[in-house]
Amino acid sequence: MSKPKIVILGAGYAGMMTTKRLTQKLSPEEAEIVLVNKHNYHYQTTWLHEVAAGTINHNQARTIISDVINPNRVRLIYDTVVKVDKDNQTVILENSELTYDYLVISLGFVTNTFGIKGMDEHAMFIQDIDSAQLIREHIEYQFVKYKNSEEKNTDDLTILVGGAGFTGIEFVGELAEKVPQLCKKYDIERRNVRVINVEAAPSILPMFDKDLVDYAIHSLEQRGIEFRLGTKINECTEEGFIVGEDNELIKAGTIVWTGGVTGSPVLAESGFEITRGKVTVDGDLRAPGEENIFVIGDCAWVMDEKTGRPFPPTAQAAMQHAETCANNVVALLKNAPLENFVFDNKGTVASLGVTDGIATILDGTKLSGKPAATMKKVVDNRALFLIGGLNMFLKKGKIRPF
Amino acid sequence: MSKPKIVILGAGYAGMMTTKRLTQKLSPEEAEIVLVNKHNYHYQTTWLHEVAAGTINHNQARTIISDVINPNRVRLIYDTVVKVDKDNQTVILENSELTYDYLVISLGFVTNTFGIKGMDEHAMFIQDIDSAQLIREHIEYQFVKYKNSEEKNTDDLTILVGGAGFTGIEFVGELAEKVPQLCKKYDIERRNVRVINVEAAPSILPMFDKDLVDYAIHSLEQRGIEFRLGTKINECTEEGFIVGEDNELIKAGTIVWTGGVTGSPVLAESGFEITRGKVTVDGDLRAPGEENIFVIGDCAWVMDEKTGRPFPPTAQAAMQHAETCANNVVALLKNAPLENFVFDNKGTVASLGVTDGIATILDGTKLSGKPAATMKKVVDNRALFLIGGLNMFLKKGKIRPF
Repeated sequence: MSKPKIVILGAGYAGMMTTKRLTQKLSPEEAEIVLVNKHNYHYQTTWLHEVAAGTINHNQARTIISDVINPNRVRLIYDTVVKVDKDNQTVILENSELTYDYLVISLGFVTNTFGIKGMDEHAMFIQDIDSAQLIREHIEYQFVKYKNSEEKNTDDLTILVGGAGFTGIEFVGELAEKVPQLCKKYDIERRNVRVINVEAAPSILPMFDKDLVDYAIHSLEQRGIEFRLGTKINECTEEGFIVGEDNELIKAGTIVWTGGVTGSPVLAESGFEITRGKVTVDGDLRAPGEENIFVIGDCAWVMDEKTGRPFPPTAQAAMQHAETCANNVVALLKNAPLENFVFDNKGTVASLGVTDGIATILDGTKLSGKPAATMKKVVDNRALFLIGGLNMFLKKGKIRPF
Repeated sequence: MSKPKIVILGAGYAGMMTTKRLTQKLSPEEAEIVLVNKHNYHYQTTWLHEVAAGTINHNQARTIISDVINPNRVRLIYDTVVKVDKDNQTVILENSELTYDYLVISLGFVTNTFGIKGMDEHAMFIQDIDSAQLIREHIEYQFVKYKNSEEKNTDDLTILVGGAGFTGIEFVGELAEKVPQLCKKYDIERRNVRVINVEAAPSILPMFDKDLVDYAIHSLEQRGIEFRLGTKINECTEEGFIVGEDNELIKAGTIVWTGGVTGSPVLAESGFEITRGKVTVDGDLRAPGEENIFVIGDCAWVMDEKTGRPFPPTAQAAMQHAETCANNVVALLKNAPLENFVFDNKGTVASLGVTDGIATILDGTKLSGKPAATMKKVVDNRALFLIGGLNMFLKKGKIRPF
């Protein structure tokens, strides 16, 4: 009898942790493990807003997979997943095919523009290393083009950010750090540069209490970020956002949309039942009706029995999914009972630049300012440590002094 | 009787050195000295190709004027010169006017496109800090856009450089260093990036002997630079250069023209007699027929009595002009006889990247490779030292190890 083959699709937080745990729980004789990823690197999705603003280097936000996963133990395939053919227990890749006995789908998210006209064509997204680098370079290019243009138009220096969730707010927080640096570099006055956050909801960061939200808005406004809350984006054009009932045009040289994400399109392509872009998984994290397919991370809705609503899709949750998923794959192999996922909420924290942030800790304690910024770095470093170990933490950890 | 007023226009090599020498030769009681410059910084023109390639930071290539010229001793005016009104001994600035008793015009060069169709509109120039930064950012933007584009076109990664004089060749030499770094940063294969130097003359760097030129071409070709020599550019379009008798289009995402310079347009605007964009000065560096106006640096043709041709316009020559000019201004003040300029040629050196170069030294010795690259840095540092002193050398000198 040949060894069972476990295939993990995607090397984000969920896929990397699952792979790592499986190599710890299973001997090489017990199972073959295959990890498929588009690139030869894992990236810290929660750091992408910093790459996009240019406050950290893209290499700090990514880790070569073979540096932390032993390629002699795990077969690493760098290719793009096209779809899963469940009937034939086969994964179709762009350049090959791959059979599996057990499958873990952890393909992460893509940006969702909710069908807002022109958003796909004219806005940039913070969704992977490449797209984040594009934003960073695009912004700097606007500065240097402005500096060299004969008829200067300050609209070219405006940065429009659609969406006031984690990514949108953490991104403008980094821009509050970066814009003064760019102004100095290109001898441009800070008052000529506008950073405008546009959000349809009446407030920002809905996962935080009002007092922390008020703190965040005040802190960012103090540092020159403008908010247009309760403002619906009707359309995105080459020139900017068209908003509100009177179709006001807010012009900008840089347009970034952070307003929504959805699970990988591979899910629908493969015939899974989709709810708002993701698969609502069973308690043991398997896709409904599937014996041997797990869906985790940002591809999955995991229901909170207590509230009847899904848990928020965070890196913290994705890494916890991985623990349960690895345990359950091993249980299947050994004909043991599977366990249900229980979310252990360790708190929520958002950065507002290098030295500022807001946080709610497990016991309900609220933090703001430097302590929250410190906590954010601890959380980032913890994720890095869990995935990459001590070496990776020392190499890429956020130990910048502040 | 009021103090005589000496006005120096432009803080390049020539203007900075003249100002510095005048403050050393004259007491504050003997004359008022005014230095006018567009920016509050001096920049090392001969380093701009490195800023444009991105191999050095723009701040390394510029020096805040008030860091090296005492603003209590010299009145510093940061404004753009519009013209000189000789009849009224007045300089017209964009935001004010300024009378003078003695005037030194050291306004440097602007790029000359020789009327090549489309070159002004579609090519970028290496002519000041801003334009060099634009090139650097433009190139990186092409890489990141390529990386993020769905239908990749490697033409977008091609860098076309028109002109094989000092700037053109030193620039492609720096690109030979920079391109592999950008390829690594954006996971792009080096073979997808072309750097093409186009020159109408049959060879490059006409100031060097053939053996050194052959060395330079071979060295650059080894590092992936392509040459199209004896190739006339008929037109520059948004897409690239149209060259040769069959109007071949060489497509590129980045187009840089380094093929020619001319003296500041202020000269013609002010009614000086112009020969190929510059004023042919008398032996004492005064403009013909002018008692109290000196023209030096890249605005001046200084004739070599021996050859009957003008000396080449280099930083070395500009700084030597400054010595003679300062002596002659002092002589005029003191009714002493003026001296004639004598060029002391210390040699010629061109870099071909960080660790390579070619050089001809005063005694006819020829150098290539690392020794020439070292000599280039010595020359660069000498200029920095002369203008900025020891502190500036330690702060911005080219002491990178190689």
